[in-house]
Amino acid sequence: MKNFDLEEERIKQEILKLGAKRVLIQVPEGLKPEAPHIARTIEKLGVQAIISADPCYGGCDLAIAEAESLGVDLIIHYGHTKLVKYERVPTLYIEARATLKADSTVEKALPLMEKWRKIGLVTTVQHVQTLDEVREMMIRSGKTVVVGDTRRLSYPGQVVGCDYSNAISIAKNVDAFLFIGGGQFHALGVALSTSKPTVVADPFDDTAFSVDAEAERILKQRWAAIEEAKKAKNFGIIIGIKPMQKRMEEALHIKEKLEQAGKVANLLAAREITPEVLMEFPNVDAFVNTACPRISLDDAARFKKPVLTTNETLVVIGRLSWEELCKKGLLES
Amino acid sequence: MKNFDLEEERIKQEILKLGAKRVLIQVPEGLKPEAPHIARTIEKLGVQAIISADPCYGGCDLAIAEAESLGVDLIIHYGHTKLVKYERVPTLYIEARATLKADSTVEKALPLMEKWRKIGLVTTVQHVQTLDEVREMMIRSGKTVVVGDTRRLSYPGQVVGCDYSNAISIAKNVDAFLFIGGGQFHALGVALSTSKPTVVADPFDDTAFSVDAEAERILKQRWAAIEEAKKAKNFGIIIGIKPMQKRMEEALHIKEKLEQAGKVANLLAAREITPEVLMEFPNVDAFVNTACPRISLDDAARFKKPVLTTNETLVVIGRLSWEELCKKGLLES
Repeated sequence: MKNFDLEEERIKQEILKLGAKRVLIQVPEGLKPEAPHIARTIEKLGVQAIISADPCYGGCDLAIAEAESLGVDLIIHYGHTKLVKYERVPTLYIEARATLKADSTVEKALPLMEKWRKIGLVTTVQHVQTLDEVREMMIRSGKTVVVGDTRRLSYPGQVVGCDYSNAISIAKNVDAFLFIGGGQFHALGVALSTSKPTVVADPFDDTAFSVDAEAERILKQRWAAIEEAKKAKNFGIIIGIKPMQKRMEEALHIKEKLEQAGKVANLLAAREITPEVLMEFPNVDAFVNTACPRISLDDAARFKKPVLTTNETLVVIGRLSWEELCKKGLLES
Repeated sequence: MKNFDLEEERIKQEILKLGAKRVLIQVPEGLKPEAPHIARTIEKLGVQAIISADPCYGGCDLAIAEAESLGVDLIIHYGHTKLVKYERVPTLYIEARATLKADSTVEKALPLMEKWRKIGLVTTVQHVQTLDEVREMMIRSGKTVVVGDTRRLSYPGQVVGCDYSNAISIAKNVDAFLFIGGGQFHALGVALSTSKPTVVADPFDDTAFSVDAEAERILKQRWAAIEEAKKAKNFGIIIGIKPMQKRMEEALHIKEKLEQAGKVANLLAAREITPEVLMEFPNVDAFVNTACPRISLDDAARFKKPVLTTNETLVVIGRLSWEELCKKGLLES
């Protein structure tokens, strides 16, 4: 995969240093095709390498239980920085930094930001190394650049699927955001968390585009889902099974609130929240998703029933107004 | 669910006896719609009830890791008998016996068995209580009836998705099998394990039919998958994550055999083996499934590449002949 640094030399050294005999390789979906190659590199050391084939969308989903069950000495987790604080199985995080430069793509993004002067800069871990250069370019183009750092994540300006604190913390000081990275997923998270115009500079496709129309579409869709859920009687409250998606207290709390509002609510534990899984509960009218908010926001069209975040559920039962929710941002938990 | 005994009174008594404060309810797909009702029955005792929404297809898939992660005191597992021998979390098995009688359906099955005299009787746990009456009926119709009991499962004549020992042990002594239960899944398992004609008496639909044509179709499909895999260079060996689907030694053993045959082989760990999961490995030409053999046999049409059982893989590399495999039965491990 020429676009990412897989750090195979470092992996080999760490394995030898730890004396690991069996390792589990966990990679996000986009990198899965590279996993067999990584595994064979490790096997050349005389070490057993098992690839985790299950879906993985974030550092929230560290394969701890799988590693314990398979008896591995080390997890090699690609593409995300550390979110799980405890370490029941030693874990090596490989950030899979992009080897591409961002400058030509940022040139293409500049015309889209003509009307704004103060720009917040955000990115994923894959591109944090480009931020200094991008900042310089932007300043040379007459922009004021702000990079947030709440220290909740590993790098200044970094965002992950569900944590935009580095954007939210500077939102008041900027006119718009520029996101460096692939696709619209993280940029949408920025827009939905901050309500600020957000432009993507995607170094992989060497394209620049705004996500504001898509963020607006999602916002309208969320409003419609909330309105539909107001008619619901039976709620299913989803508790995530993945390590950093499990919010038991939040689930119990929203169950109590729903029951106080005269609703019926059941607790459902789920690993992967898919239409097929939810379809097995035909008598549930609406779901509350305490696991991964992005499934509610991004995948709504795939589900036949509302799959609300906890804050959206508070709007359903009148404990929060739509305006307050929009002010908080759709990804604030 | 009027067709099944959900044993709610027994559940309540067991929960009170154990003093459980939080329970996990695990039900197979067909019973999932009943789970919210069961949960609310339990909640009336002042006990927290969480429904496991993840797919569950057998006693092999006991939600132990989920139960530990959620901090529950008791798993209530519906629809399967005990397969997991150790008990890290106390588990109550509710067999979900069918409340339907089988006699009118067996009447319909008798004409399909006209040419055979000695009949092996098999069923799932849902219908074991009908076996005595069905046996009497068959004897009155002039049949000799045999019920196998290897003591590997909980009841004489019982079969589960991957264990047909109670059929295999009597196959030599019977002309054909009669399976009492819903659908063709278990009956196909009987036919593929024993190579004997197999008739279903399905009390839910009150219909009787032969599965022999479908078993023949699967057999041909398996032959084709093996032939296709002979051309494969890169193999992915799937290790199951579910408690009774994890066969690490078998996976390591077949990896060694494949490598001795000049193939490249990687170990993949997976919870749910789906086309989407396997599609993430475009460079793998064929998969070896050491987890659940029924995914190989029943779902082949869904997969774009061969997903072989371990024994089928031995045929690919010339360590077993197709004839020997057929003699062993496709579900022998």
